[in-house]
Amino acid sequence: MITPADTLEALAQTSTSRRSFLRTAGFTAVGAGALAACGKGGNAPSEQPTVPVAPPVATPATIKAAADAMDAMHEKGLKSFPAKTAGLGNQLLAPTVVAGVKVFDLTAREIQWEVSPGLLVKAMAYNGQVPGPQIRVREGDRVRVNLRNELTQSTAIHFHGMELPNDMDGVPFITQAPVKPGDTFTYEFTIPDGNVGSNMYHSHHNSATQVGMGLLGAFIVEPKQPRPIEKVSEDYVMILNDGMQGYTLNGKSFPATAPLTAKLSQKIRIRFMNEGMMIHPMHLHGMHMTVIDKDGWPLPYPFRCDTLNIAPGERYDVIVNCNNPGTWAFHCHILPHAESEHGMLGMVTALVVAK
Amino acid sequence: MITPADTLEALAQTSTSRRSFLRTAGFTAVGAGALAACGKGGNAPSEQPTVPVAPPVATPATIKAAADAMDAMHEKGLKSFPAKTAGLGNQLLAPTVVAGVKVFDLTAREIQWEVSPGLLVKAMAYNGQVPGPQIRVREGDRVRVNLRNELTQSTAIHFHGMELPNDMDGVPFITQAPVKPGDTFTYEFTIPDGNVGSNMYHSHHNSATQVGMGLLGAFIVEPKQPRPIEKVSEDYVMILNDGMQGYTLNGKSFPATAPLTAKLSQKIRIRFMNEGMMIHPMHLHGMHMTVIDKDGWPLPYPFRCDTLNIAPGERYDVIVNCNNPGTWAFHCHILPHAESEHGMLGMVTALVVAK
Amino acid sequence: MITPADTLEALAQTSTSRRSFLRTAGFTAVGAGALAACGKGGNAPSEQPTVPVAPPVATPATIKAAADAMDAMHEKGLKSFPAKTAGLGNQLLAPTVVAGVKVFDLTAREIQWEVSPGLLVKAMAYNGQVPGPQIRVREGDRVRVNLRNELTQSTAIHFHGMELPNDMDGVPFITQAPVKPGDTFTYEFTIPDGNVGSNMYHSHHNSATQVGMGLLGAFIVEPKQPRPIEKVSEDYVMILNDGMQGYTLNGKSFPATAPLTAKLSQKIRIRFMNEGMMIHPMHLHGMHMTVIDKDGWPLPYPFRCDTLNIAPGERYDVIVNCNNPGTWAFHCHILPHAESEHGMLGMVTALVVAK
Repeated sequence: MITPADTLEALAQTSTSRRSFLRTAGFTAVGAGALAACGKGGNAPSEQPTVPVAPPVATPATIKAAADAMDAMHEKGLKSFPAKTAGLGNQLLAPTVVAGVKVFDLTAREIQWEVSPGLLVKAMAYNGQVPGPQIRVREGDRVRVNLRNELTQSTAIHFHGMELPNDMDGVPFITQAPVKPGDTFTYEFTIPDGNVGSNMYHSHHNSATQVGMGLLGAFIVEPKQPRPIEKVSEDYVMILNDGMQGYTLNGKSFPATAPLTAKLSQKIRIRFMNEGMMIHPMHLHGMHMTVIDKDGWPLPYPFRCDTLNIAPGERYDVIVNCNNPGTWAFHCHILPHAESEHGMLGMVTALVVAK
Repeated sequence: MITPADTLEALAQTSTSRRSFLRTAGFTAVGAGALAACGKGGNAPSEQPTVPVAPPVATPATIKAAADAMDAMHEKGLKSFPAKTAGLGNQLLAPTVVAGVKVFDLTAREIQWEVSPGLLVKAMAYNGQVPGPQIRVREGDRVRVNLRNELTQSTAIHFHGMELPNDMDGVPFITQAPVKPGDTFTYEFTIPDGNVGSNMYHSHHNSATQVGMGLLGAFIVEPKQPRPIEKVSEDYVMILNDGMQGYTLNGKSFPATAPLTAKLSQKIRIRFMNEGMMIHPMHLHGMHMTVIDKDGWPLPYPFRCDTLNIAPGERYDVIVNCNNPGTWAFHCHILPHAESEHGMLGMVTALVVAK
Repeated sequence: MITPADTLEALAQTSTSRRSFLRTAGFTAVGAGALAACGKGGNAPSEQPTVPVAPPVATPATIKAAADAMDAMHEKGLKSFPAKTAGLGNQLLAPTVVAGVKVFDLTAREIQWEVSPGLLVKAMAYNGQVPGPQIRVREGDRVRVNLRNELTQSTAIHFHGMELPNDMDGVPFITQAPVKPGDTFTYEFTIPDGNVGSNMYHSHHNSATQVGMGLLGAFIVEPKQPRPIEKVSEDYVMILNDGMQGYTLNGKSFPATAPLTAKLSQKIRIRFMNEGMMIHPMHLHGMHMTVIDKDGWPLPYPFRCDTLNIAPGERYDVIVNCNNPGTWAFHCHILPHAESEHGMLGMVTALVVAK
């Protein structure tokens, strides 16, 4: 899992070579400077400057001025990446272990969530995070999840991809009563053998709204016996969402998304999970991805690609052999989800491979 | 193939254990009661009650009232499932056999179609059904399809996925003249060796309108020598559609969709067919699906998933090993295609696995 | 690669048998007649005739008149196929070889582009073509691409799918400075071993606009040692796009799209590339496709289908064994991308298999 702090630390450890190619490229990670430049509500979408357009009778000078103005907006966005925002989703949640049971406490409530610098949206969150905290358990574990509902509407949790006893499936009026505001419901189950990999937990009540607003998270089951291909230096989760909060990766829009980092020749794993309403074909520059799992199930034969289409509800696990040094764009290839005349936005991040 | 009658019968045969877990879950299949509760036009979308919202100054009492009101709408929808509506599509059409030729008669005409209780939409239908009747033939069969056009516009039938002689391909002005109102056209062909599996028939004239309004159906070719994996206890067709008639499974929207049923440890086959304009990633709870065929062609290596993205024109065949008892939600994971603040809707059904 | 001229020539070589089945089918390729019939601005979309509708009190005569009028529009479109328009995209660009380096010169500028007869749209084009000229190189080649920017905004080229040194990746402010209006930038690199197949080049600056308006093209790398399955009689590129210029195949909308042609029993390859913002499930009539490559990478096990869903940024290579003679519709199966009440449109072409 990566956090901006982790990232900056990782980057710092490899700063010499990385800075050299960033400098060559005119790319500077300013991090802390981002809030000053973009935050404080002074740069909310409704106040974006108009994109200058060359006037009808364009001269080389007016064309240059219009191009420079557009480029300056693009540069400003990229220089602010990774931009700081309040709050981080998908943070690993350590369980309490009670009599051999791994216990996770989740509280659902409404919060304000900073999607990109200065852009606050209304959200529904588990433990104040969008996505909710990352839950990692192991094949065969006994697991308990206490859901406390502090929303103003009922809710419930479905463990998407898990093959649980029916009364733990989390669908109000089919498998349980809705969890009313103020109430707590406890899910408890044993992870079935073989039911491993990249799964999710999310609301299954008024779900178009509740999942769209943030009641979702990664539920990862580590196998007792990992395959050799699973031995990686970093294990990333990338949760895609769209809709009311905009186009987000792990709850943040570019430039507030977190970069992925690796050292040259390391292998990383990325667990794509789509919790949105649209497909998102994620495109990695510079290196290909080897797709090993679909919905937590191993593919009989992994395949390679540079653009992986992930539909709502799907998960794909990929391995990237980071053999190409540099800072590589990594984004949804539905281009309006990634860029406008004002610069990059939404579902854009970078994979930084340090020499 | 399943019909509400089949379902209720199947459910009745396993009623004791099924009722017990439904009761536990607060879920009751009322069937016949659905029309009384929802029908008679009293619950058309334009007349849906407003979703109560907790007022700005919420108190525990007003929050509870708002949550209870929303939940009551969700419960009402689920309790009415499977709701009765007039008309059933995808009914197996027995051929007349004439001199060794299997003859199917299809008449296209405009009808009113009840998509969900009380919601009547204008439709174009083969033999008064949306989807049209299910045609099942066998590899090597000689097949004749008589199309009678009682619409007010021309039409034609394309056998999507079948590799037929060109003049049987059903594309007006490319392979045939359009079939005018009042006219009949006869398609006749031999099923080519190896051209088996889950195919479709539908209009290929003014098709965005005609297919959108219902001129479509399953055209299934059974192989002479089925593979061992094809031996199943039930063989379901699930035709997805969207657009003017709403989000439908086999021509019906939840709660009027038909549940799939199985007994514990049975294997079922589901043939997904997308006749709409949008992708629909279908998500099954509680058990995974093993995808064996794409567009009627065996995959070299089946793969497993719980969410299968089906694009317009595609078909996928899956096997579900029904090893987890209970009533399991089964729905499109584009959540607005499956739920609103008013409850479940559209592309939702259930797989009922009886102990 | 196919051009209308090639097509007509190819068709002429097989004209007897082809004409016979076209005549049988009521289908005539008029080619040159298309512009006279549809061009000169007299048939632009805003001036399309209203689709006649049978009046409320329909009689057999009024129904027939309405059906005949709709059919006449469909017939007119199909008879004009393949319609001539000014300009052809995706034309093979022969490199200049300088000291062993294959040099390609690309100039980006705004043009008017004729998408379908009489329909001129504003475009951004490389060398006056939409898609830009097709670049074909070989594994291990040294390649130089000189980009001259004659637009009124900055630009850059990303070689999508190529695993190049970071400073050749074409992303302004990450890997290079933007190429300003009036400036030239030179990309130079060696094709890495194994990085072969169907890739693309396109703008990566203000890309939602620039790619949407035409700054894109095929970048194909031929392997040193082709696989046996790659031995085909024709190697087609089919670039999908949508958005401001409408639904296009290689920059043209039906009826101005180019048909694919083959002789009976020949094998052809089709390289699908999606440069748009939407999925496009391409459906071939009469024969199936065997999918061999994804994003230029060989699939471990090819699979067969008749409808192939291609997401933005993806490429798929397929082989079609042309064993079924006739003119076969070939189109996106999102039906509004292919047909309206006025007839076929957009992402429609045909595969003509001559006896």
